[in-house]
Amino acid sequence: MIKFFEKDPYSPIQYVYEVSNILHQSKSAFQEIMVIENPHFGKMLILDGVVQITERDELFYHEMLTHVVLHAHPNPKQVVVIGGGDGGIVREVLKHKTVEKVHFIEIDEEVINVSRTFFPGVACGVDDPRVEIKCMDGAEFVKSRKGDIDAILVDSTDIIGFAKSLFTVEFFKTCKECLAEDGLFVSLSESLHFHKEMVIEVQEEMKKIFPVVDLYTAPIATYAGNWWTFSVGSRKLSPREMRREYAIETTYYSDEIHNQCFMPPRMYEKLMKKELKW
Amino acid sequence: MIKFFEKDPYSPIQYVYEVSNILHQSKSAFQEIMVIENPHFGKMLILDGVVQITERDELFYHEMLTHVVLHAHPNPKQVVVIGGGDGGIVREVLKHKTVEKVHFIEIDEEVINVSRTFFPGVACGVDDPRVEIKCMDGAEFVKSRKGDIDAILVDSTDIIGFAKSLFTVEFFKTCKECLAEDGLFVSLSESLHFHKEMVIEVQEEMKKIFPVVDLYTAPIATYAGNWWTFSVGSRKLSPREMRREYAIETTYYSDEIHNQCFMPPRMYEKLMKKELKW
Repeated sequence: MIKFFEKDPYSPIQYVYEVSNILHQSKSAFQEIMVIENPHFGKMLILDGVVQITERDELFYHEMLTHVVLHAHPNPKQVVVIGGGDGGIVREVLKHKTVEKVHFIEIDEEVINVSRTFFPGVACGVDDPRVEIKCMDGAEFVKSRKGDIDAILVDSTDIIGFAKSLFTVEFFKTCKECLAEDGLFVSLSESLHFHKEMVIEVQEEMKKIFPVVDLYTAPIATYAGNWWTFSVGSRKLSPREMRREYAIETTYYSDEIHNQCFMPPRMYEKLMKKELKW
Repeated sequence: MIKFFEKDPYSPIQYVYEVSNILHQSKSAFQEIMVIENPHFGKMLILDGVVQITERDELFYHEMLTHVVLHAHPNPKQVVVIGGGDGGIVREVLKHKTVEKVHFIEIDEEVINVSRTFFPGVACGVDDPRVEIKCMDGAEFVKSRKGDIDAILVDSTDIIGFAKSLFTVEFFKTCKECLAEDGLFVSLSESLHFHKEMVIEVQEEMKKIFPVVDLYTAPIATYAGNWWTFSVGSRKLSPREMRREYAIETTYYSDEIHNQCFMPPRMYEKLMKKELKW
């Protein structure tokens, strides 16, 4: 039996997957790209040894990164997706009829191409006329826009390596300037089980820039630590409030989940005071 | 480097842990018992190759199995704990001043002894005067009581092997008869990510017996699938409602979490109709 041992330097548990097929292996200018098949999860995209998506459970992450802020915004038209080369976030964004333009900024074109080939169900939106693909550094792209973006969704790899520039005060500042008055920013921010200190750090950095900062979570089985966090920043709108009807097709996200997924106030306060001990 | 490869036949991801020390290895009449030490999780109790508790994250499971039903009951006095030989559930139950007696029914005395030696912070309540230890099959014990128990908490190993008798209609029926009018029953029921069909099966079996059946979840990093479920049954009381003030010391559980942890109604309905696809 062939096995894949995940190489996640931040995880105290190593995840091992059975491999029924190795479908793709390449090395782009940025990273090693691999597609394997697993009996339970179906096809899996692996970048630099870390699982990014699996056919079976990608919906949890993609729905939760996308729909919370897109329901908190009263009328999202211009959306920026940074990273997410597999196309999963773009697919979810396009479910919103209000959206006129998706600026899809992925530094590594090779990931988009691999996803087109092996994950057609995930990459299905990347060639939609509303989507403009730019293969460049997301931190550079946001410098080119001022005050006209409704939502920025950051779907990067972990907070290490070349994705690091997407977790700095400078980046958050540029993003804020890029956003319109009602704009919202959201980024993955690792696991509350395994990377609590990183979660706090991202929140603290965002608070230096955004007047409103919040945190919500979702259960994701294939990301180490699984109790996954999403950090939201905005100029004024609270992401806890839904400002549009829930009228799209989703599997996990719903108005019910929107209302349950945010950190409870007292727990959030304890987290930020570093009083949650585990 | 020494590594421990978890042997969980139900998990599509194999979890691998670094081992800094092997502290104990024995074979009881029921199972293989091992205690290892890991740099991140501290000491870990392993039964038949499956992680049961770790010093670092045991609080999540123990608090969540215990405090939801003990806050849903107006005045819990007589509590039965089945399994949970490590003592974690007993420790949590004893935080409730109303509790007069804990019937601690663990089939394998050896687990209690190993926990006394290696997990004093977990086993700290097992020798409390309010606790009566009986080393026998939980399914047998409940046959001996009629209508005077306020809460039954089942903390067994996974739904395979010798714990299977704790997940049958017969067992649920005996438990219901054992409970007083306001009594509640709760049991672990595996992961929504990896064992959705098992969760549904346990709920369906419980519905044959209990007038009220419900489901709540908690994130647990060291149990495969991590999005862990707890199945509650009762004669009449809904576990969603808190009937007593939250006035105990906990780290994860709180009145906030009590109100957030239950499956949202529409999602629950879809789950039971087998319409949740993942």
